[in-house]
Amino acid sequence: MNGKKNLTSKSELEFIKTIHNTIIDHLNGKDKRLVRSLKTSDNFKSNINFSIDDPNDHQDIKILIDQYLESAVNTASPHFYNQLFSGFSVMGYIGEIITAITNNSMYTYEMGPMATLIEKELIKKMSNIIGYKDGFGTFVSGGSNANLIAMLAARDKINSKSKKSGLFKSKTLCAFVSEEAHYSFIKAGYQIGIGTDQIIQIQCDLKGHMDTDLLLYQIDKALSEGKTPFFVGATAGTTVKGAFDPIKKINKICKNFNLWFHIDGSWGGSVMLSKKHRNLIRGSESSDSFTWCAHKMMGLPLICSVILMKNKNILKKINNVSETDYLFHGNDHDGMDLGIYSLQCGRRVDSIKLWLAWKYYGDIGYEKRIDRLFDLAEYAQAIIEKSTSFKLISPVESLNICFQIQTKHLNKSEWNFLTNETRERLVNKGEIMVNYAMIEKQCCIRLIIVNFNLEKSHLNIFFKSIESISKKIIKENKTN
Amino acid sequence: MNGKKNLTSKSELEFIKTIHNTIIDHLNGKDKRLVRSLKTSDNFKSNINFSIDDPNDHQDIKILIDQYLESAVNTASPHFYNQLFSGFSVMGYIGEIITAITNNSMYTYEMGPMATLIEKELIKKMSNIIGYKDGFGTFVSGGSNANLIAMLAARDKINSKSKKSGLFKSKTLCAFVSEEAHYSFIKAGYQIGIGTDQIIQIQCDLKGHMDTDLLLYQIDKALSEGKTPFFVGATAGTTVKGAFDPIKKINKICKNFNLWFHIDGSWGGSVMLSKKHRNLIRGSESSDSFTWCAHKMMGLPLICSVILMKNKNILKKINNVSETDYLFHGNDHDGMDLGIYSLQCGRRVDSIKLWLAWKYYGDIGYEKRIDRLFDLAEYAQAIIEKSTSFKLISPVESLNICFQIQTKHLNKSEWNFLTNETRERLVNKGEIMVNYAMIEKQCCIRLIIVNFNLEKSHLNIFFKSIESISKKIIKENKTN
Repeated sequence: MNGKKNLTSKSELEFIKTIHNTIIDHLNGKDKRLVRSLKTSDNFKSNINFSIDDPNDHQDIKILIDQYLESAVNTASPHFYNQLFSGFSVMGYIGEIITAITNNSMYTYEMGPMATLIEKELIKKMSNIIGYKDGFGTFVSGGSNANLIAMLAARDKINSKSKKSGLFKSKTLCAFVSEEAHYSFIKAGYQIGIGTDQIIQIQCDLKGHMDTDLLLYQIDKALSEGKTPFFVGATAGTTVKGAFDPIKKINKICKNFNLWFHIDGSWGGSVMLSKKHRNLIRGSESSDSFTWCAHKMMGLPLICSVILMKNKNILKKINNVSETDYLFHGNDHDGMDLGIYSLQCGRRVDSIKLWLAWKYYGDIGYEKRIDRLFDLAEYAQAIIEKSTSFKLISPVESLNICFQIQTKHLNKSEWNFLTNETRERLVNKGEIMVNYAMIEKQCCIRLIIVNFNLEKSHLNIFFKSIESISKKIIKENKTN
Repeated sequence: MNGKKNLTSKSELEFIKTIHNTIIDHLNGKDKRLVRSLKTSDNFKSNINFSIDDPNDHQDIKILIDQYLESAVNTASPHFYNQLFSGFSVMGYIGEIITAITNNSMYTYEMGPMATLIEKELIKKMSNIIGYKDGFGTFVSGGSNANLIAMLAARDKINSKSKKSGLFKSKTLCAFVSEEAHYSFIKAGYQIGIGTDQIIQIQCDLKGHMDTDLLLYQIDKALSEGKTPFFVGATAGTTVKGAFDPIKKINKICKNFNLWFHIDGSWGGSVMLSKKHRNLIRGSESSDSFTWCAHKMMGLPLICSVILMKNKNILKKINNVSETDYLFHGNDHDGMDLGIYSLQCGRRVDSIKLWLAWKYYGDIGYEKRIDRLFDLAEYAQAIIEKSTSFKLISPVESLNICFQIQTKHLNKSEWNFLTNETRERLVNKGEIMVNYAMIEKQCCIRLIIVNFNLEKSHLNIFFKSIESISKKIIKENKTN
């Protein structure tokens, strides 16, 4: 309609092309680059002008971008084992640039027509996989947010007046999760006004599974104290051990006591894509809600999380408020205005990256990749079990491998130091990044197997590096 | 370390290059493309296979991407006036691809070193602009989320036990916002457990400003009913009228009653960048918290929102919970692990796009652009005021222009129909997109001036199109 002037100037287009080339170079170099920059924050501060005042030209900006790319953690590398995600997804990256270039928003169908249809398709697919025949859901700002929404739905079920009147005259509601559950449940308890004290943490067995006898005991105890249990959050894939709570047993208890049954599959939900491993969450269809982060085991860039609900009406019921007329104009166009189902107003399109990746791999491609991760975890486990220096601290149930470095050359009381110091020196070399955790006061290295580009050869390097560093530390500290 | 195999294969790199070229073509075509696809959801469904089952090759994926790009709302176009954002930001786009390619996460310094320093710099800058000398803040998942966090902070101030014990034994807390405030306050009231009834909506004057006499009256009323007022949310830039609540008057009331004073500057916060217009929020430094969405008036892609707090310790106080040891290892590295200040766990880097754009424009560049938007709003207002067919329904205070189409050829009772029908036909042509709203039962077109590429010529086209469509409708429906 107005062809006189290009919206994007020639020099701007040239700059975008330059950065596109930078991206390609960056991808080509990812294999060779350190996982972690060795620069300290003081290094950064002295080399980079972070402050924002005066304008800069494209050349200045290019330098800043190069510095950012160089200094960022190389999460694409197979040597990056630090978080519950690792790797680079081509379709994920492409999905993100499509989201960025179009900048549509998910509140109304009008403002994101194809994005709305894509999100609905994914939600339908994921609901079906969980076993919700007539479920619904929405993309959310992360697994923490999904767990919050599940708890809000449960609160609404036990006390439907709370939406309008609040909790001031309510009985004391309490929720149950395992002691190994993610901290977002505690934050959710705080946010929704029941208080962190009302998130009762159930002890786990040694494998990291919620002890259902203790769950029963705690429910009884809460009842005897005059509290009103309303929610149980099982975890499918705990953060540290990768353990899966016993779904069927927990479900039975929930049904007996009429409690909302939520499954936090932020990490482990994706095992549902594998016929071989989905039995870890057998019984998922009995739950009321399910959290699933595709930016973890499905390899996509942050954030790509959904909350799924068995009852398709609940999200609208809890999210619908007045004063939205300016946006939704009093109707939701046959369920096509997804903003009505969301806590967010403006919402970016997180669905297209998942849709493209899933379209590309197909169900079969994801299944193969996830099965392969489990095989690699088995391989890593075997190395540890064969080794005299490494000791599993928790049985391996999925893709988390927690082990300690032990040696007769040091006192048992020094094994924590040995493990921690080994991990510290390893990470400080910048070539490998892995996290640690405390299990029953034992410091262990938490190896996460989640990168689709991971090979046995990487794991060999990993264990050899650990071994050689730990030997050096042992030598320095030898007592006998 | 493992140079045998490229992490990204040659064909994958080629595909990324192809899509990069698609992006450039798309940008080149943005001027000529319709703002809105004329396809219905049935058109989409019959042309596109949304379902996810079998794998697809790069060629298939390319077709889907082309379809997505073609069908997406062209929010870059100056003819897109539909939301509180419009336009294409080169630096915003580049920031997003840098975020996607690096995929760092904002919970720990270790997992996003330069990103952490960038976020801290932006928060410092934005806090200073608001007038918080020793403030702090965090990037959040949107303006709604920011308003929620403000209310959580206020709840903590009035009832510091609520974090731990919940609201069950609390006095009934109540909050005050104007009737024109964003619906997210009502959702926040619901979420935090005080209930939607406890969000008391204060009537506005005709300009859309909260009536502070009525605020006083409602506070007194709440007190006399035994309720405990704890929070006032002023709006800097309302969604429909673009009105700015009287900050100084509201602050005085808040201080008198010891209430948390929040300003929702989701839309209008950016006027602080203009020396000429920042007086709209004069007194911002007296507030306790401030919401600011840079994806609106600063032109960046969704989402780029922050919550700022005058008290630098409050975010940590309200967000810190137990069971985070696996991630933060018991310390926050001198305030460098930003996850401790956030409701989110995994969090994408939303800061780099803003940092790059601000670095590029400088303060002066943003100031000029925002001043120019106000000038264009004045230009549009003048057209309406000169016209015999258009009538402002609300005085123009910033960048929202709400007007009705009126004519003596139709009964007054038909002006709503005329306005609505004109907007409907305009939007259905696909060349211009603008939203409507109801003000005091009068249907009006809500014109939003926010696109940095907007020219007077676009506005001329806009009003001419409206005029010509409305004349046609008048002709069809003429009664006298």
